[in-house]
Amino acid sequence: MSETKTMSNETKRGTNYSHYNGGSLAEWAEHKMMHPRRGEVKGKHFLKDHLDFTGCEISINSLPVGGAMPFSHQHKENEEVYIFIKGKGQMQVDHEVIDVCEGSIVRIAPNGLRTWRNTGDEPMVSICVQVRENSLRQHTFEDGIPNMDPIKWPE
Amino acid sequence: MSETKTMSNETKRGTNYSHYNGGSLAEWAEHKMMHPRRGEVKGKHFLKDHLDFTGCEISINSLPVGGAMPFSHQHKENEEVYIFIKGKGQMQVDHEVIDVCEGSIVRIAPNGLRTWRNTGDEPMVSICVQVRENSLRQHTFEDGIPNMDPIKWPE
Repeated sequence: MSETKTMSNETKRGTNYSHYNGGSLAEWAEHKMMHPRRGEVKGKHFLKDHLDFTGCEISINSLPVGGAMPFSHQHKENEEVYIFIKGKGQMQVDHEVIDVCEGSIVRIAPNGLRTWRNTGDEPMVSICVQVRENSLRQHTFEDGIPNMDPIKWPE
Repeated sequence: MSETKTMSNETKRGTNYSHYNGGSLAEWAEHKMMHPRRGEVKGKHFLKDHLDFTGCEISINSLPVGGAMPFSHQHKENEEVYIFIKGKGQMQVDHEVIDVCEGSIVRIAPNGLRTWRNTGDEPMVSICVQVRENSLRQHTFEDGIPNMDPIKWPE
């Protein structure tokens, strides 16, 4: 998919949903954003405004071979979860190094000082979820309401 | 990776983080869980207890070729976000069909009646994030605290 196609993705909204396509994992490298301190950054794409999230921010990320975050950061009140889905690299939390690869998931409390880098030979692709610490009151099946009406799918 | 290895994954905890490896995307199909109505379900793995999340629940999921959820569900107070990272399929929200593929992201409000199926010729791999609706107060750079100290990585 060309960058033009990535940029022309539009959100489709229904009464109870929003749907947006961020492109294939290979295409996540082409997204661009304006960072308040770093200027234009490639390979990082925040989704909240595209999907109308009210309980989280999520970014889809592709860090090139040899890439590293140029600084560390903490958070004020948000917990972050990094889900690595392709490639390999390292995170640092409070100067402790954690090796990560496809399937690694890292939760970081607001106060954790964090940074990361790609140590592999392909883009390091990840999803970062940002939520307010201690905001979840119930989860999984406690919060679900099953509906046993028959499901009809189009042919 | 064998199922034994998947099952022996352990959480590593530091002061401000938890780290857990859910296995490669191909291995997500091997996870098992006990569902309160369906009994043992394969290919669905909830992460909250492994990673000590306080603001979200996240599951990693692999639905086999031809697979479909046997019922629909709504939520009481939680927003859900489905991130599709491999394969293709369809979601239904309030009986409206949405085609999804690698890179599709769907936010569903608590009241949305949802179900999904795999319509492709490979496992449909997804991540589902559950958060409390309207719980996020600030996000992205508003919540970040940059730290410009030099970063040291091991050789």
